[in-house]
Amino acid sequence: MVNEIRKDYLLERYSIIATNRLKRPKDFRPVKTKEKKIKCPFCPGNEDMTPPTIFKINGKRGWDIRVIENKFPALSKKANYKKKLDGFTNCFTGVGHHEVVVESPSHSKRLDQFSVKKIKQIIDVYQQRFVVLSKDKNVRFVAIFRNHGKAAGNSLSHPHSQIIATPFVPELIAREMNASSKYRRRNRKCIFCDIVKKERKSKRFVYENKSFLAMCPFASIVPYETWIITKRHVKNIAGLKEQEKTDLADALRAVLVKMNKQITNIPYNYYIHQAPLDSKNNYHMHLEILPVLTVWAGFEKCTGAYINPVSPEIAAKELRSA
Amino acid sequence: MVNEIRKDYLLERYSIIATNRLKRPKDFRPVKTKEKKIKCPFCPGNEDMTPPTIFKINGKRGWDIRVIENKFPALSKKANYKKKLDGFTNCFTGVGHHEVVVESPSHSKRLDQFSVKKIKQIIDVYQQRFVVLSKDKNVRFVAIFRNHGKAAGNSLSHPHSQIIATPFVPELIAREMNASSKYRRRNRKCIFCDIVKKERKSKRFVYENKSFLAMCPFASIVPYETWIITKRHVKNIAGLKEQEKTDLADALRAVLVKMNKQITNIPYNYYIHQAPLDSKNNYHMHLEILPVLTVWAGFEKCTGAYINPVSPEIAAKELRSA
Repeated sequence: MVNEIRKDYLLERYSIIATNRLKRPKDFRPVKTKEKKIKCPFCPGNEDMTPPTIFKINGKRGWDIRVIENKFPALSKKANYKKKLDGFTNCFTGVGHHEVVVESPSHSKRLDQFSVKKIKQIIDVYQQRFVVLSKDKNVRFVAIFRNHGKAAGNSLSHPHSQIIATPFVPELIAREMNASSKYRRRNRKCIFCDIVKKERKSKRFVYENKSFLAMCPFASIVPYETWIITKRHVKNIAGLKEQEKTDLADALRAVLVKMNKQITNIPYNYYIHQAPLDSKNNYHMHLEILPVLTVWAGFEKCTGAYINPVSPEIAAKELRSA
Repeated sequence: MVNEIRKDYLLERYSIIATNRLKRPKDFRPVKTKEKKIKCPFCPGNEDMTPPTIFKINGKRGWDIRVIENKFPALSKKANYKKKLDGFTNCFTGVGHHEVVVESPSHSKRLDQFSVKKIKQIIDVYQQRFVVLSKDKNVRFVAIFRNHGKAAGNSLSHPHSQIIATPFVPELIAREMNASSKYRRRNRKCIFCDIVKKERKSKRFVYENKSFLAMCPFASIVPYETWIITKRHVKNIAGLKEQEKTDLADALRAVLVKMNKQITNIPYNYYIHQAPLDSKNNYHMHLEILPVLTVWAGFEKCTGAYINPVSPEIAAKELRSA
């Protein structure tokens, strides 16, 4: 069978769906977790090992969720914004915010093992921090993301997410915004509404509830890539209502449970794609989960195109039935 | 010290040079090579384990270099090109070529341990294959790349490179071409000539010979990222003259030796950036070496921006003195 090359809904990004290398969940090695026994800075009682608490939700063991500044922040809230733009070596000061959301006092629970109520609480904190950080005049975009497993770049296994607020609109986000504007001008429709409408009925459907659809995108760049997308226009996480946050938690939990049934302790990155703060465009904020089962190597780095050995139709079918 | 955010010479791509996380070569773990003892399909005598030879250079042990089709080609030369463009789920047939260049009969030599003459021979083969593949009317771009080490996505340790000829112009290449056209319209100069001219005299200089400059790019996205760039306009590898191929081999060897002095058996991807086949633009083909010492995680995947803990000025200084 000949492979297919697919274009992303929005970007001029190509993915080679290499089904001639067809892999099934069992072909991916089980993920061993061998953790060094260190004193965990995120465990209750060790709060003095981290920067001070910025925000917390109180709980039985002192706190249920705790937000701190990253010990080595990529961007700093104390810096003064300066730029040097000579058209060749353009640079500016690394102002912004870099926070860690310690999601639970429990050291070794996985996110998919939390209740919907607990995951909703984490989403509440994402939303609250987003609202606070978006008031900083230097901030143009807020990246909310989570790394699970060593292969996904996670160095501390205690459940946590990160938030980086940047003084620039990142390239990928800018390109998505441009492409969605272009689609709207051409088709007089919102591309994200089309994605929801069309993919709900496609072979790439995974799960849905009242507010969110979970599906494997047409030009998935990695095996089992799954998006959880708002059904109505919602620019960013601040726009989610109470019930919608519960629905996002429900869909996120459902998908992660399904993924873990396929591959135990599957490593992944997830992140929220949302509009830049100053954007006037329509957007449907969505959470993208990228399992880390393959390695991006010379071809991907050379071209910005991808080789994915599992088609999204097969991935979705397996996730639906898991 | 506050971090700096840098923009790529060409792309709207940002790299956060996070020197507050400053790492030195000794901070990166030494790379152990524990290889499973399997019958190597690339060793002399095992030629029947691979697809047939497409091209070879004869040598003492039967061949010095051997080119074969990839056993699981991402793109297939036998396919008929068809496309389905509905503006939403756009896709087309995976036509193209996917070849493996087995660089030597020797199983365990690293590329930096080869002589300049031997590396030049490999570049000769890249060039010859490029010329052949570029005659296929379906081919629009040729990606030539090499993965060294497991972290860099290499599954077989026997020295080899890969060539994938694509029926599309990959996104990253298209964006580089657009950005360089824009720079030329604005400044009436070739951006690559400017890079060579300015970076030769900068703190990011690593090595040079008559035809090539090696330097760490201003907005390096990974620690010790190094480009080896032609000093004159050369669109693609077909344009390299004999002496230039020797000079590329010399610079490549020099840089890899330096990198391995810093971190023994450093894992890396390298690839050649060159113009699409139908391009009329000026271009300076260059080889980009990306050591794999950090993991791209949620932030990078969310934004297309990067966090790099080693500034290119420090990286270049260490490489110069190695």
